[in-house]
Amino acid sequence: MAVSQIPMMEKYVDVFQLGARNMQNFNLLRAIGETRTPVLFKRGMAATIEEMLMASEYILSGGNTRVMLCERGIRTFETATRNTTDINAIPVLKKLTHLPVIIDPSHSTGDSGYVSAIAKAGVAAGADSVIVEVHNDPANAISDGKQSLTLEAFAKMVKQVRAVAEAVDRRLVLQHERA
Amino acid sequence: MAVSQIPMMEKYVDVFQLGARNMQNFNLLRAIGETRTPVLFKRGMAATIEEMLMASEYILSGGNTRVMLCERGIRTFETATRNTTDINAIPVLKKLTHLPVIIDPSHSTGDSGYVSAIAKAGVAAGADSVIVEVHNDPANAISDGKQSLTLEAFAKMVKQVRAVAEAVDRRLVLQHERA
Amino acid sequence: MAVSQIPMMEKYVDVFQLGARNMQNFNLLRAIGETRTPVLFKRGMAATIEEMLMASEYILSGGNTRVMLCERGIRTFETATRNTTDINAIPVLKKLTHLPVIIDPSHSTGDSGYVSAIAKAGVAAGADSVIVEVHNDPANAISDGKQSLTLEAFAKMVKQVRAVAEAVDRRLVLQHERA
Amino acid sequence: MAVSQIPMMEKYVDVFQLGARNMQNFNLLRAIGETRTPVLFKRGMAATIEEMLMASEYILSGGNTRVMLCERGIRTFETATRNTTDINAIPVLKKLTHLPVIIDPSHSTGDSGYVSAIAKAGVAAGADSVIVEVHNDPANAISDGKQSLTLEAFAKMVKQVRAVAEAVDRRLVLQHERA
Repeated sequence: MAVSQIPMMEKYVDVFQLGARNMQNFNLLRAIGETRTPVLFKRGMAATIEEMLMASEYILSGGNTRVMLCERGIRTFETATRNTTDINAIPVLKKLTHLPVIIDPSHSTGDSGYVSAIAKAGVAAGADSVIVEVHNDPANAISDGKQSLTLEAFAKMVKQVRAVAEAVDRRLVLQHERA
Repeated sequence: MAVSQIPMMEKYVDVFQLGARNMQNFNLLRAIGETRTPVLFKRGMAATIEEMLMASEYILSGGNTRVMLCERGIRTFETATRNTTDINAIPVLKKLTHLPVIIDPSHSTGDSGYVSAIAKAGVAAGADSVIVEVHNDPANAISDGKQSLTLEAFAKMVKQVRAVAEAVDRRLVLQHERA
Repeated sequence: MAVSQIPMMEKYVDVFQLGARNMQNFNLLRAIGETRTPVLFKRGMAATIEEMLMASEYILSGGNTRVMLCERGIRTFETATRNTTDINAIPVLKKLTHLPVIIDPSHSTGDSGYVSAIAKAGVAAGADSVIVEVHNDPANAISDGKQSLTLEAFAKMVKQVRAVAEAVDRRLVLQHERA
Repeated sequence: MAVSQIPMMEKYVDVFQLGARNMQNFNLLRAIGETRTPVLFKRGMAATIEEMLMASEYILSGGNTRVMLCERGIRTFETATRNTTDINAIPVLKKLTHLPVIIDPSHSTGDSGYVSAIAKAGVAAGADSVIVEVHNDPANAISDGKQSLTLEAFAKMVKQVRAVAEAVDRRLVLQHERA
């Protein structure tokens, strides 16, 4: 996503996704701040929670308050999973800000076998939303197949996440986006 | 805990706690392997999941199979919490081993305000057990006061963790240890 | 630095500096690749050496081969210095690529008291160049004062780096840029 | 190395080597503090410089002041080398303590091809000593062959390190230990 693409995108997209690699691309943040399009704001893989909040201010201070903060895993020494889900970030963010907090277990684990467990963990820890990658044929996906759920696995996950959500007095609503 | 203390401890203690700093103290691991006392085996703060499993083999190969693996947070660049709870480690360990997996949100967050959220996350992710620090007067605790729950907060946490446990088809049983 | 600034900058600047936060800003990398202006390419603070080389290919494949790779410190758990100088990266990069390798001890330590030691270390390890921040009045600098050398400290450093350079059969040549 | 081995070792060894995994084995630190044998004190792979100095106090406070601090690499996200040499630690330690500071490029890189470059870097940064692994037949070494220098490579390294040492007004003296 680049600054020059914003005018065109603004007409068609429901939500901008600010990728982890762009979290401190301040020109882009300022340009998004000038719009009123909701933003899925992803934490940089080596960004502290404080830096994440500071960077989000570039959007908020432009008047665009429709920012959703997304924990998508940080880079650590552990290599058993592609990233390390910083689950602590969920209650920390909920304490420090009123913005909605999202967990992205597909990227934070990089492995479809662990997505459901971490989706449940995120909701139990207080996340307001879960974003997951689903593909009708993960083995032949052009990208991110390893971390994508099949439709069957997704249906099973939804059922489980719904039960956990209710256990923490939340209610699950489904939305989808086409890749 | 030292090798020389094992014979005396063996008579009185229900469970050895192998601290994170001793996770690769191979003399101690071998000595514990010679006993039949259960062991709470805590992950070293910079140990990979693979190293954790390899080190636990020093105990298992001595014939002591009563090993419980405990995720208690790893060291990363993030300083908003004392450690980073590696929540991914819960489903990874459940996949790689049949040993019970415990989460320790008191150490993995270092902050009593986040303990309940992470306890729930751990159980939602598949942990078999939660270990938490409780103190009747945390402000005056000799150690670890910042991360200790009051009795009231603990009671509230138990209620919430129980609800999450049931949502993932588990049942909560209470046990306690005196510090 | 943004894509839209390139046409104007191209007329005046001797070298583009691609900052650490832009190392994986692929739109920008491609645009720089279309120019023939030399690029000081700084490693992202959580980028692996492999990712650094892969990202530099976006510039090289556009035909701009005037890329200088710069180690400016990575993010780790250590907080005694602002970043951790990955000194290993110097011989690793010299082995993997023919591009010139630069060390930036001002950013990699964040402390003027350590700049000279790390400048010498970088040259001893094989760096082709050193880039340092100098200010005539660091205490009142608008930014980066803490890591800036005074003119006197810089003169002293140059003398010492020259001696180390000669010890490893290199020769020191001075160039400067105005902030 | 275990507490129980100290009385026997004390009679024969010139220097105790406290390995990285034992850096916070406080029983062992206290026992070494009771002796007057010099100690090669290796930094734990996830220990901060501050923790390293605090742990060394367990030895010093027992009256054994013959402690040598050794930087042997820390664990980070970078995997191009086995560990990341924290070269910043050299000038930081020289500033914070009067104890001798050693660099161990064999462990801090894990690769014989990088040992000489990092040995030179360490001396240039102010290290008082370098410790390296040498083997007459690295390919068939029982352990650590990958990071061991051949006799020829060692001789070449000594010549280069000597030149750097002289450039920073130090003088190189050789000592050896048999594995």
